[in-house]
Amino acid sequence: MADSATPDTAVPDTTASDTTTVLAPHTAASAITIYVCVTCRGGRPLDLVPVPGEVLATATARAAEGTGIAVRPIRCLANCNRGLSAAVRREGAWTYVFGNLDPLGGADALIEGAKLFAGAPDGLMPWRGRPDALKRGLVARTPPFDFAGDCR
Amino acid sequence: MADSATPDTAVPDTTASDTTTVLAPHTAASAITIYVCVTCRGGRPLDLVPVPGEVLATATARAAEGTGIAVRPIRCLANCNRGLSAAVRREGAWTYVFGNLDPLGGADALIEGAKLFAGAPDGLMPWRGRPDALKRGLVARTPPFDFAGDCR
Repeated sequence: MADSATPDTAVPDTTASDTTTVLAPHTAASAITIYVCVTCRGGRPLDLVPVPGEVLATATARAAEGTGIAVRPIRCLANCNRGLSAAVRREGAWTYVFGNLDPLGGADALIEGAKLFAGAPDGLMPWRGRPDALKRGLVARTPPFDFAGDCR
Repeated sequence: MADSATPDTAVPDTTASDTTTVLAPHTAASAITIYVCVTCRGGRPLDLVPVPGEVLATATARAAEGTGIAVRPIRCLANCNRGLSAAVRREGAWTYVFGNLDPLGGADALIEGAKLFAGAPDGLMPWRGRPDALKRGLVARTPPFDFAGDCR
């Protein structure tokens, strides 16, 4: 369930999946990859240099130092109307796409959320304790690559 | 580039990725899985039965008959503010999340888009020829599970 402080606009993504995810209870942060869109401009001018997505990618890589979390640039997550964007993936688990990220503040939120995700025994990024930017900015999630589907 | 008929609200997701995707030029439709969110209500009443997401899932499964495309139910793609939702994945390639789908018309669009995707040599769902519902309804895409990132 959502924290009581959850803003109305943030819909918790905690609908249960009845498909068992087989994961070690607490995987290392090295199982996490954050893809930061380096082409995102977040509504800012097209000639702005550096590109805001690049700023977020650099800040995220810096915030990840020493954590084991991988940060990779990506050219477009197709979330262009809601940039800046990043996707957080855990090996063998789900991928979360976030939007409306701040070029600098977004970096710390991504790393905090990634650490929380790494420690989740069910392979889902917990809602409780998740940074506000990753609640408000939640765009979508996609299942593990071999996901067989849930029962109806 | 976008078709000239592309509505202003649809942002083409054709930013080039410089990471080579190694795929057979034309994979079978059986390489495609469509995950339809069966918990989505798309802003409709909570007590509406059947659940609109279920209607879309059933219609999509019916439209997929004989194509080789797999249709699987999924319980939440975390795209709740923009439902009805579905994700279209091609084996070894990208996953596309779509929202604001119509319970019945969305099914044909998903199958048409999936066939287009199956035939794309670069592993990306082509913009040209893509059904309008999958242009307007594009929410995000996530990379192949072993995606190493693009160069900056």
